[in-house]
Amino acid sequence: MRTYLDCIPCFYRQALDAARIAGTDELIQKKIIDEISQLIPNFSLEATPPEMGRAIHSLVGKISGVKDPFKEIKENSNKFALKLYPKLKQEINNSEDRLLSAVKLSIIGNIIDYGAKNSLNVVEEIDYLFQGNFMINNENNSTTFKYNQFKESLNKTNTIIYLADNAGEVVFDKLLIEELVEELGKKVIYVVRGKPIINDALIEDAIFCGINRVAKITSNGSDAPGTIMKYCSPEFIELYQSAELIISKGQGNYETLSEEDRPIFFLLRAKCPVIAQDVGCKIGDMVLVGR
Amino acid sequence: MRTYLDCIPCFYRQALDAARIAGTDELIQKKIIDEISQLIPNFSLEATPPEMGRAIHSLVGKISGVKDPFKEIKENSNKFALKLYPKLKQEINNSEDRLLSAVKLSIIGNIIDYGAKNSLNVVEEIDYLFQGNFMINNENNSTTFKYNQFKESLNKTNTIIYLADNAGEVVFDKLLIEELVEELGKKVIYVVRGKPIINDALIEDAIFCGINRVAKITSNGSDAPGTIMKYCSPEFIELYQSAELIISKGQGNYETLSEEDRPIFFLLRAKCPVIAQDVGCKIGDMVLVGR
Repeated sequence: MRTYLDCIPCFYRQALDAARIAGTDELIQKKIIDEISQLIPNFSLEATPPEMGRAIHSLVGKISGVKDPFKEIKENSNKFALKLYPKLKQEINNSEDRLLSAVKLSIIGNIIDYGAKNSLNVVEEIDYLFQGNFMINNENNSTTFKYNQFKESLNKTNTIIYLADNAGEVVFDKLLIEELVEELGKKVIYVVRGKPIINDALIEDAIFCGINRVAKITSNGSDAPGTIMKYCSPEFIELYQSAELIISKGQGNYETLSEEDRPIFFLLRAKCPVIAQDVGCKIGDMVLVGR
Repeated sequence: MRTYLDCIPCFYRQALDAARIAGTDELIQKKIIDEISQLIPNFSLEATPPEMGRAIHSLVGKISGVKDPFKEIKENSNKFALKLYPKLKQEINNSEDRLLSAVKLSIIGNIIDYGAKNSLNVVEEIDYLFQGNFMINNENNSTTFKYNQFKESLNKTNTIIYLADNAGEVVFDKLLIEELVEELGKKVIYVVRGKPIINDALIEDAIFCGINRVAKITSNGSDAPGTIMKYCSPEFIELYQSAELIISKGQGNYETLSEEDRPIFFLLRAKCPVIAQDVGCKIGDMVLVGR
């Protein structure tokens, strides 16, 4: 997905948020804003938004001296989500269609994202979503829920490449991976970012949440808040290009891979108007799109 | 009021909105964004937000070639508000405290502002506010409603300088001015902007809405979306400096005059978190502050 002009105000907001989380004072924050302003005229709208996101957060790191400002937030997200795990697992155990429930929960897990929102009451939101008030309950009402097609693709697949998004959300991913591995007998390779970027999951988050007990964990080698091939490691690129089926979580991966001609299913919550328009849904919608 | 870093994303959003209303294509919009990016590093946070607003809209005018992109919106706002006038007048006629009702309506009129919001359902919002769900109903609950102090100041005053904000809102101003002139025997001088800027009222808007039948109309000579003295005419500055009492409408006038040591009462709706924090209220609050 290309960058839209509406992304630009949001770039500044994200930079401010990150600079504040890094504990900088207003003088440093202004310096960051000024440096971003110098990047904007040279930034092509043909690039994906995470390309600029990467540049912004690299700038925040360089100027603030804080290389992983979201570290504590990520740790708290992981702990918070792990506490929810038994309740979520029970939800799946009690459901008629285990895979569907796990897919839904994996998408719900995408609300744990401090990149697109300043704060949110996660517990309340999960409860609300659990009550069934979301579009993917009724496939017929939605052009953006391709569950049957997803199941068909799964049937033909042995190994799934699972592209992670945020810390915390990893626990929700684990529930879906458990279904894929333990119930359906698939192999899963779980791919996280290579270096700290916003609150995106790293290898340490995947291990902390116990992904290593059900899947192989690897990194894409990059520090972009998405999957931008030119910054990824040769090992990841090979894995990606030979993949039978890819599950891609979150906005950042969608923004960077939506135009790829690969067998990818995108699971995300549309958190901004630009993404919602690109997907063809409303803000807040829970989405499963792909081919 | 100084500029906060949170204003910067909003500057870009306003520029995009204005450029789109001016009918530009994305290439021109990007050019506008790029030129704003060059202004940002030289913009002092000590300046008020309307100082940047003025620069941005001047840039949009220069690059798009459209000098008054909000002209049609202003005309529609005026016509829309004039249709409401009989209902609003009846509201005042039926009220126990005519002046209080007129003050409240004047503040409600500040919702007709296309500068801070993309769109709004004005009728619905007025109806909602009429139902009494706003803080200024109960003076005791609010630190930001100084109605009694305002009345005392009025008692000691013959001539009031009334600083207008938006087109459309002018009709709501007229209701308050009618109370000041016809019920309380005051003289009112109604001050509009000197040149087109966003949807701010000009002399033509004031006349279209019939202000000339109850007050003298003049302009501040400036093209800022607020009252920035260095851009105002000497005639306005003299008027302002000798004023017994000033009624200032809207955010732009608040942002530019809030630190002035003059007898000013600010009537506005706090439409953004930065203003709300500066005033000491919540977003959406209806405010009467001043001295």
